[in-house]
Amino acid sequence: MTTAEPVASPEHATALDAADPLASFRARFVAADPSLVYLDGNSLGRLPLAAVARLHDVVTREWGGELIRGWSHWMELPRRLGDRLAADVLGARPGEVIVSDSTTVNFYKLATAALDARPGRRTLVTARDDFPTDRYVLEGLAAARGLSVRWIEADPIAGPTPADLARVLDDDTALVALSHVNYRSAAIADLPALTALAHQAGALALWDLSHSAGSVPVSLDASGADLAVGCTYKYLNGGPGAPAYLYVRQALQGGLHSPIWGWLGRRDPFAMEQGYEAEEGIGGWLAGTPGVLALAAVEEGVALVAEAGLDRLRAKGSALTSYAIGLHDAWLAPLGCRLGSPRDPARRGSHVSILHPDASSLCERLVASGVIPDFRRPDSIRLGMSPLTTSFGDVYRGLDRLRSLLGAPGPR
Amino acid sequence: MTTAEPVASPEHATALDAADPLASFRARFVAADPSLVYLDGNSLGRLPLAAVARLHDVVTREWGGELIRGWSHWMELPRRLGDRLAADVLGARPGEVIVSDSTTVNFYKLATAALDARPGRRTLVTARDDFPTDRYVLEGLAAARGLSVRWIEADPIAGPTPADLARVLDDDTALVALSHVNYRSAAIADLPALTALAHQAGALALWDLSHSAGSVPVSLDASGADLAVGCTYKYLNGGPGAPAYLYVRQALQGGLHSPIWGWLGRRDPFAMEQGYEAEEGIGGWLAGTPGVLALAAVEEGVALVAEAGLDRLRAKGSALTSYAIGLHDAWLAPLGCRLGSPRDPARRGSHVSILHPDASSLCERLVASGVIPDFRRPDSIRLGMSPLTTSFGDVYRGLDRLRSLLGAPGPR
Repeated sequence: MTTAEPVASPEHATALDAADPLASFRARFVAADPSLVYLDGNSLGRLPLAAVARLHDVVTREWGGELIRGWSHWMELPRRLGDRLAADVLGARPGEVIVSDSTTVNFYKLATAALDARPGRRTLVTARDDFPTDRYVLEGLAAARGLSVRWIEADPIAGPTPADLARVLDDDTALVALSHVNYRSAAIADLPALTALAHQAGALALWDLSHSAGSVPVSLDASGADLAVGCTYKYLNGGPGAPAYLYVRQALQGGLHSPIWGWLGRRDPFAMEQGYEAEEGIGGWLAGTPGVLALAAVEEGVALVAEAGLDRLRAKGSALTSYAIGLHDAWLAPLGCRLGSPRDPARRGSHVSILHPDASSLCERLVASGVIPDFRRPDSIRLGMSPLTTSFGDVYRGLDRLRSLLGAPGPR
Repeated sequence: MTTAEPVASPEHATALDAADPLASFRARFVAADPSLVYLDGNSLGRLPLAAVARLHDVVTREWGGELIRGWSHWMELPRRLGDRLAADVLGARPGEVIVSDSTTVNFYKLATAALDARPGRRTLVTARDDFPTDRYVLEGLAAARGLSVRWIEADPIAGPTPADLARVLDDDTALVALSHVNYRSAAIADLPALTALAHQAGALALWDLSHSAGSVPVSLDASGADLAVGCTYKYLNGGPGAPAYLYVRQALQGGLHSPIWGWLGRRDPFAMEQGYEAEEGIGGWLAGTPGVLALAAVEEGVALVAEAGLDRLRAKGSALTSYAIGLHDAWLAPLGCRLGSPRDPARRGSHVSILHPDASSLCERLVASGVIPDFRRPDSIRLGMSPLTTSFGDVYRGLDRLRSLLGAPGPR
């Protein structure tokens, strides 16, 4: 993806889009306002056209027409979507992933099970800069059990390294819980190396894949990860508040158990028998009745990711973020911005954080002008580049707008 | 609602429908197959026409068009729907109810909080015939904490009485958790009396309202109940797997805390600060990101219930079930059926259980013939009469079909 044009020219963006093998996917999503520059697909992904049709069908034909009889096939959605995610997104096997509940509830279930599986160990390890809900859940579990959280204090841009983890890890650690891609900086953690380190100490490793799944390949089985969770409303385009997934390595499924003994995690739930007996396998992690409408939308979002393929998505995500960094360097660094993401594309997910003291008001003014970033306190303009739906032209227009707001001279 | 016609005549059903003040609500729901006799609205309520329109709008205009900006109003859905349920369905005050997660997860959160609030007490009390997910969750909590469950063994039709509860309750009881309306027999538990008894023993009372809310008035505040949960996909017509609600009495909100410290239960979640501080009030019971599409559908379902009014819904529910029992007595009892629900309408919710040794195959044959009941093992044909959508004609046709299947002579 190189052209003869200068990097900071609209012609260069046009050339990059023309050469993009995934460009046609953009037309398979709703673009209600074609002039909108949407750079927040890593917070809420766009609406697939297929999801509009699917939701209409699941609402009117299935809920409206099949009524209760719909459960004969709805009940399979959590497992079917889990297997699809396992195969096409997460590098896992059938029966290792299930879609249910929220990321927070799944994280709670898995972290609790991990602590139960390491009785006597008194610390949980996570990173100071990890996503809040994960940190809070771990703090809650530590408080309830008289354990303590040990914090990895890593470079805020580079994220936790094995050396950072080694400083807080010991044979009293029950669980290491970390984000694969940091929600702020986009730093990719070295999942296999950090997992191996946790295992050396006898701890279990739980990964939050929310900011990687669908844009950065994840090889859960090959990496040695024990447990994982993630949401489906970012790069997987499942819709606002769509249900989350969880992964439990097959070899661990016999020894770890959900703390929430819900009826749908029980063997033969519709027998409604006395006494809980966890279903063997990943189904034992279900709790209550699955949300059918949302699951149907998730299936359509995941199908598009699968069709595009993780290798192509990863290549485009790297190209988009590298392009954004090139524009940052050319335009924004001279105007007081600083890059808040790793420069090495191999260490960077599919978003870029641009730091500026006035980030909050800059984000407000960007939104008012039709460019949608995300503000992350105190100083980050976070730009998500969802490889299925973001064009190089979007990146060009978004950063050009930011350049104007920062007072750059020019036609705008 | 009496006519000069014999009870077991189609003319009587027609007359009852003609006199039904709620009859017009039926046209506000999708009826894909007008010949279908749907007697399972207490398992999955019908699809409101308003929900079709609302879902189309929330999908295309809000998700598709507003994208991430939708959260400026979506974030209010759990509280707004909670307040609506509180005022129009549950007899509670603003700020006492919130809609989130599944019934199972909410039951887990509240039961855990109740046990935390009664340290040192070693038993949980529930009923042997309560809905499975509640029983299983309590068994799981007991196992995790070294507590034991004491079972109320009540009459399977009449349900737990205060005397039944008194037999297993003592000053070692931390929590009494019961269903308001039994999922099988439809027996209404005496919520105020059972709650008062629990309080006398120093225990907290947690109620599952899934089979009452929307058909039987609930006066949570007046009854003294401490905690409650329920689903929205039965009489509230929220859609398959729609999110559930939970209630925490205002006076208890300072002293009870969710075990799942999710980011949306934290004060000022988007500050994404270090350290969890539970939001004061009902918002502290949120965990992860709310499912927006499903919440929008719930709002439409609840609005219809509110418009009809609980008093009218209750009156019609009682009339429908009394009518069904009249037909049972006239037609089915002589053919080997037995009533599995209380005869006193004041002690009965909005469904009727008809017991027969061949209930399983009878239910299959009913479904095949276009009458949808629910089978509950081992011997119950459960007929749900959702007062918003079930007509007296439905009840007549459904029981007439059952009568034919049982070999009654007649035109069919």
